[in-house]
Amino acid sequence: MDTKQAAQEPGNTHLVWREEARREVFTSPIFSIQERTCRSPDNEPRIFTVLDAPDWAIVVPVLTTPRGKEFVMVRQWRHGAQELSLEFPGGVFEKGEDARAAAARELREETAYEAGTIRSLGVCSPNPAIMANRVHFFLAFDLKPLEAQALDEDEYVEVEVVPIQAVFQGMGRPPYIHALMGSALALLGKGDSLFHL
Amino acid sequence: MDTKQAAQEPGNTHLVWREEARREVFTSPIFSIQERTCRSPDNEPRIFTVLDAPDWAIVVPVLTTPRGKEFVMVRQWRHGAQELSLEFPGGVFEKGEDARAAAARELREETAYEAGTIRSLGVCSPNPAIMANRVHFFLAFDLKPLEAQALDEDEYVEVEVVPIQAVFQGMGRPPYIHALMGSALALLGKGDSLFHL
Repeated sequence: MDTKQAAQEPGNTHLVWREEARREVFTSPIFSIQERTCRSPDNEPRIFTVLDAPDWAIVVPVLTTPRGKEFVMVRQWRHGAQELSLEFPGGVFEKGEDARAAAARELREETAYEAGTIRSLGVCSPNPAIMANRVHFFLAFDLKPLEAQALDEDEYVEVEVVPIQAVFQGMGRPPYIHALMGSALALLGKGDSLFHL
Repeated sequence: MDTKQAAQEPGNTHLVWREEARREVFTSPIFSIQERTCRSPDNEPRIFTVLDAPDWAIVVPVLTTPRGKEFVMVRQWRHGAQELSLEFPGGVFEKGEDARAAAARELREETAYEAGTIRSLGVCSPNPAIMANRVHFFLAFDLKPLEAQALDEDEYVEVEVVPIQAVFQGMGRPPYIHALMGSALALLGKGDSLFHL
C-alpha cells in the first residue's frame, strides 16, 4: 500500500513509511488490535498500535414532512461515551455486504424507512492515526415507511424526525455528540447535496 | 454518569444503561481497552468493549494571505489508514494540560505558528459507541510565524497552506481522508465562524 501511495504522490515519498510486519495482540467481537512494525522515511524501525474493524456505513435520511425537509435520526445509549446520542443511522457491514447495501439495511432496521434513492457522499477514515477501517457516508431520500424497526434484542433505538437546521446548529453539544455525524454534515454541505433533492 | 444523564433527560430513562464494572484487558502507550459490564434498560446484563485514551485537541488555523483566508494544514503518514493525510494540526493532551493549551501547543509544534486568538468550536466524542475519550475543536487566528516546528524524532509532518474551499470541496477523498477534519468543518460552518474573523 505504501508503494501505491508513493506512486500516486511522487513528491511526497519522503513522508512515506513502509510496513514490515503485523501481529494481532487483542481481539473482541467488534474489533482487533494489531502491532505494526514499520520503517520511517529515514529507515528507522518503529512499532505502532492499530485498531482494525469492519467498515461502517452512515446514512443521512432526508424526509419530506409538512414542515419541509427533515432528518430521520436515532437516539440511543452509547457505551463508549456513557451518554445518549442523537445520530444518523448506521453500522458495520455484514459479511459479504457492500457499502450501499449496508447503508440501506441499517436505515431499514434502525428507522423502519426504506430508501428509494441512496447516493454516496464520500469515504473517510474514522481516525487514520489508529484505525484501519473506513466509514462510508450516504444520503438517502424518497423514503417509504415500513411496518417496524428490526432491532437486535439488546438494541434500544428511538427514531426522531429532526429539523435540518437543529442538527447543523446543535452539533458539538449533547445530544449531538457523535463527531462522525459532523463529518456527514460536512460532506452533505460540500456539494449542496440537500438542495439537489 | 447514567444517573446524571437520566436526570438531564427524564423522558429518555427507558434508553439508559447502567454500568456495573470495568476491567482493563489491553494497554498500549496510546490507548487501553476495557470490558464494561452493563445492565440494559430491561435489566439484562451485557459486556461491551471500549477503547479509552487521553482527550485530543484539533485546531483549525486560519491564516490571512495575499489570496485571502486560508487553512494551515499538515501532511503526514497515518499508520492506521496506511496513507498520507492532509489535516488540521492536533494531538492528545499532555498530562495536566487543558484543551486550549493542548490546541495551542500542537499548533506551535506541528506548524510553527503561534495563535493570537483561540476560540472553542465544540466538543464531541470521536466515536461514542466504542471510544470513551473526547475530541475538542478550536479555531485559531491572528497567527504569528515561529522559527521552526518542534517535532518528535519519529514525526514527519509537512506544513501546507490551503485555500478554504479546496478543503471543504475535497473532504471525503485523498488526501482529505480524516473524518474528524470533516467534523471540524461542520462546527466551523455552523456559526459561520469563518465570517466573523
